[in-house]
Formats: sequence, C-alpha cells, structure tokens
Amino acid sequence: MKIDIEKLKKIVGANNVSDDIADLYVYASDASVHHALPTAVVRPKTIEEVQKIMRYANANKIPVVPRGAGSGTSGHTVPIDGGIVLDMKQMNRILDIRPEDMLIKVEPGVVDDDLNRALKPLGLFYPPAPASSRIATIGGEIAANASGVRSVKYGATRDYVYGMKVVLANGDLVNLGSNTRVHSSGYQLERLIVGSEGTLGVVVEATMGIRPLPKYRCLAVANFDKLQDAGNAISDIISSGCEPSMLELMDKIGIIAVNKAMDLGLKEVGAIILFEADGNVKEAVDFEIEKMKKICKKHNGKDIKKSYDLVERTKLFSGRKKLFASLSQYKE
Amino acid sequence: MKIDIEKLKKIVGANNVSDDIADLYVYASDASVHHALPTAVVRPKTIEEVQKIMRYANANKIPVVPRGAGSGTSGHTVPIDGGIVLDMKQMNRILDIRPEDMLIKVEPGVVDDDLNRALKPLGLFYPPAPASSRIATIGGEIAANASGVRSVKYGATRDYVYGMKVVLANGDLVNLGSNTRVHSSGYQLERLIVGSEGTLGVVVEATMGIRPLPKYRCLAVANFDKLQDAGNAISDIISSGCEPSMLELMDKIGIIAVNKAMDLGLKEVGAIILFEADGNVKEAVDFEIEKMKKICKKHNGKDIKKSYDLVERTKLFSGRKKLFASLSQYKE
Repeated sequence: MKIDIEKLKKIVGANNVSDDIADLYVYASDASVHHALPTAVVRPKTIEEVQKIMRYANANKIPVVPRGAGSGTSGHTVPIDGGIVLDMKQMNRILDIRPEDMLIKVEPGVVDDDLNRALKPLGLFYPPAPASSRIATIGGEIAANASGVRSVKYGATRDYVYGMKVVLANGDLVNLGSNTRVHSSGYQLERLIVGSEGTLGVVVEATMGIRPLPKYRCLAVANFDKLQDAGNAISDIISSGCEPSMLELMDKIGIIAVNKAMDLGLKEVGAIILFEADGNVKEAVDFEIEKMKKICKKHNGKDIKKSYDLVERTKLFSGRKKLFASLSQYKE
Repeated sequence: MKIDIEKLKKIVGANNVSDDIADLYVYASDASVHHALPTAVVRPKTIEEVQKIMRYANANKIPVVPRGAGSGTSGHTVPIDGGIVLDMKQMNRILDIRPEDMLIKVEPGVVDDDLNRALKPLGLFYPPAPASSRIATIGGEIAANASGVRSVKYGATRDYVYGMKVVLANGDLVNLGSNTRVHSSGYQLERLIVGSEGTLGVVVEATMGIRPLPKYRCLAVANFDKLQDAGNAISDIISSGCEPSMLELMDKIGIIAVNKAMDLGLKEVGAIILFEADGNVKEAVDFEIEKMKKICKKHNGKDIKKSYDLVERTKLFSGRKKLFASLSQYKE
C-alpha cells in the first residue's frame, strides 16, 4: 500500500509518524491472537489532525484503524488490511469533571487508572474498569464496550456514555448525544458507537457518567470442591437479590495457571468465587457479604475469608487480576 | 389515503381493525399537543400479524405508527401523515422472568405497573417507571426512552434493554442484541431502537434487565422559600456523593397547579424538593436521608418531613405524581 509519509508528517509532525519496521511490529498485534502489520503509524494530538488524516486516507482509500493501549482481546486494533494505525494515546486530557452532574469529559487516550486517580480525591470513580485498567484507554474501552469485575453492579461502558465527538471516515466531525444525563431527542447514535470497534468513526471526545466512590468495600473468597456448586452459588446469589459489587469465578484450570505463573499457593480446588459488596454504611456492606457467605455455605463453599482492608483485598484479588495473563502462558 | 380494510381484517380478524371515525379520534392524539387522524387502526396479537401488516403497508406506501398507551409526551404515536396506527396493547404477555439472570422477556404491550405487580412477589422490580406507569406499556417506554422519578439512581429505559425482536418496515423480523446481560459482539442495534419512536421498526419482543426490590424506602420532602436555594441543594446533593433513589423539584407554579387541581393544601413556597433513599439495610437508608436533609437545611430548606411508610409516602408523593396532569389544566 502506498502512503505519503511526508504528507502525514506535515499534518502531525515528523515525530508522530512512522513506517519503521520496528515501530510497525509494535502496532501489529493486541491482546488477541490476531496479527497484521500496518503500513504506517500516526499519532495525532488534536481533533483537527484526526480530521486531516481521515480526509487524506479517505481520498486515497487507505484503511485506518484507531488504537488505544492495544489491550483489547477482540482484535479490533489489528490492521488486517494494512494502512494507518491511528495511535490515540497522545489525546489524553481530562477536559472536565462535573461532580454536580456526575459527568466527565475526556479525550479518548486517557488511561482508565489515571482517570480514576484524578477522580478519587473528589470521592468519585469511573466504574467499568476492565482488568487492563492500568493501561486501557477510555477510547479503547468505548470501542470494545469494555466491562470489568464491577460491571455486575455498575454496568459496562455502554451504560456510561452520554455524549461524543466522532470523526467520520470522510473527516467530518459530528456531535452525538449530549452533555447532559437526561436527553431523549434524536437517535442515540452515541450508544451505537459503543462496541463498534472503530468501524464507524474515531472517537475524539466523550462525555461519560461517573459515580460516587463508596466508603467501604469488603471482598470475600470461597473455595468449592465442585465447579457445579460454585455455579449454583452464583445463580443463587443473583436470584436472591444480593447486590454484589463483584462476583467472579475461577475454575480449577484458572487456579492452577495462576499458581504456576505467580506462585500464589492458592488451594487447587474445583473453583473459587470472589464476591465483594460496597457502600457508605458498614452495616449494609456487612449485610450483603453475610447474605452471600450464607449462600456459598449452602452450596458447600468453604475456607471463606473476607476483608475490608485494601492491602488484604488486593492480595485476595491478585489471582483473578492476573488470570488472563496467566492463562496465556499456561501449558498442561 | 386508500387502505384495504378487508385485507387487514383477514390478517388480524374483523374485531381488530377499525376505520370508524369515533375509533380514529381515540387514536388521533397522545399526551402531547399534537393531533392527527389515522386512516385505520389495527390491533395485532402476534408477530406474524405485525409482519403481514407491515408487508401490506410497505407494498402500498402506507405510513404505520406503532402505539402503546398513548401516554407519551413527545407526539411519537400521532399519525401526522395518516395511515395505520398499530395498537400494540394486545401483545401483552410476560414471556419469561429469570431472576437468576435478572432478566425478563416481554411483549411490547405489557403495562409497566402490571409488570411490576408480577415482579413484586419475587422481590424484583423494573425501575425506569415514568409517572404514567399505570397505563404506559414497555414498548412505548422503549420507543420514548422513558425515564421516571427513580432514574436518578436506576437509569432510563435505555439502560435496561439487552435484546429485542423488531419487525422492520418491509416485514422482516430481526433479532437484535442477546438474551444475556453480557454481550459485546456486533453493533448494539438494540440500543439504537431505544428512543427511536417507532421510526426504525416495530418492537415485538424485548429482553430487559430487572433489579432486586429494596426492602426499605424512605421519602422526605423539604420546602424552600427560594427556587434558587432548592436548585443549589439538588446540585449539592448530587456532588456530595449521595445516592438518592428519587430527587424531584416542584416549583411554585407546580405547587399552585397541584393545589388547585387536587386540593392538597401544600404550602405554596418557592419550591419543594422530594428526596428518597432505598436499600436493604435501614441504617444505610437513614444515613443517605440524613445526609440529604443536612444539605437541604444548609440551603435554607425547612418543614422537612420523612417517612418509611407506604401510605404516608404515597401521600407525600401525590402532588408530584399528579404534577403533569395538574399543569395541563392550570390557568393563571
């Protein structure tokens, strides 16, 4: 594919374009099993630059694949037909935080954990965090409709999108949705963009919902000899009207993989369930945790541990956090 | 407009088609200010009937406007170009309730309050209820992206849609989304349908999220001499990380209108705020209510009353519940 590198350098600056093979390899894969070399990598810093790149690519029939951290597992950042990979990580400003509306406005390259670090001192958080939140960008999470361990209570990315600026394939900039939480006029195209994996346009700005950070979080783990029992416990927890802020299952292969990769010394039982409750009142968090503990016990759950302490919780959770990476290097 | 009434009668039965002027008048308006007579009213009972009607209308270029209860305020059920009004109220079966997945499957004509009456004994509820929930149908709520007083905590209709069967203009039946809560493949067309006011197709089945019904609800009201103070209290409540399950403001005109229409004897102050908290643990509900009371007082709120009792809560809320109807008959 013929790409005019000099033209792209004029748009974004010489440092922000590369067709060096070493650079291209970096952008050839993500956390999926797919792999394909782009023809060039371009790193825009402004909406106008994105528009100019898209206009050039459109006029010359060059495919463009937007990319955040490349931590997605569905392969949506892999340039299967070559062309331009648009690295959005430099557009990483938090433009606005409006606690009175529980809304933020961000550029797509903002990293999830950075966003939550900025929100924490204000007693706020952005809930959908996937396991890769340390590197995942909000733009990538929108593209993938990312969800995470707290989505069982707080929902996925799609539940947090209210407004968006999107650059279309022809370079046009469109405003979708609104800057408010309540709006019902027109088609909700902003939610159509969620999960569209960059195929409908390049998200260059997003207005997203946030939530008050709960004061207490209590995490518990339960071991099960039988996977079936653990599955039944989960069904029972949900149908009993519990409101876990996390409810995760690790099966035996997962446990063994994590032990091998991290030497955690987890008991290699049939399955582990991790369950969390959160809230501003300890009695209410206790109530939820005790209710879920009881259900686990009913389904032969054992060795149940719980903790409110951040360090202890992080330790209890470390196996689940590294599950995906551990499985990728697991051999029987 | 020429419509073959006999043909429609063959599809849905003679009792389910009308071009009688008295019937047409009933379908000429909704809760909006708009008004237009349809050419015929058709009441299907099955998906196949809807498909046949759409095929006939499409072949003959006859506009079709789907309609639930006609309680919408945006005029989306008014047939501005005449044609067929498709009354969906006979397709009113609750097809499935799955507490273990917190999902239900319903036909579009199910009335919101009927759905919640079916869910209540199971300890569940469908939260987005608009003020018209006594008559509003789920299909109409999807068409309008309806929200209600509890949307401040629980979100609008769009946050509850997971899967859908839709009959397109040409009569084709399409499955959108999924029967599960977690799905990220393909475009999320099911959420594009939400708020599209019947313009993209006829929703004939929907898989919707539900929530556990909280054990306690506490409603409080506060009077304010100045509207500005009430507005500031609301901003402060939201930005302080409170989680009201309802947060409504009535201004002076609203209060006077309700008093005139219902003789409620509300104090005709500058504004009233109604705020509610809910949860399974009374301490937590109390905590939220007391936090919001304190904020109201800080902004000169007074005469604060609160109640956990359903009868008392219904009384406190009756003014707000009838606000829309009262305003419609209000004269200065």
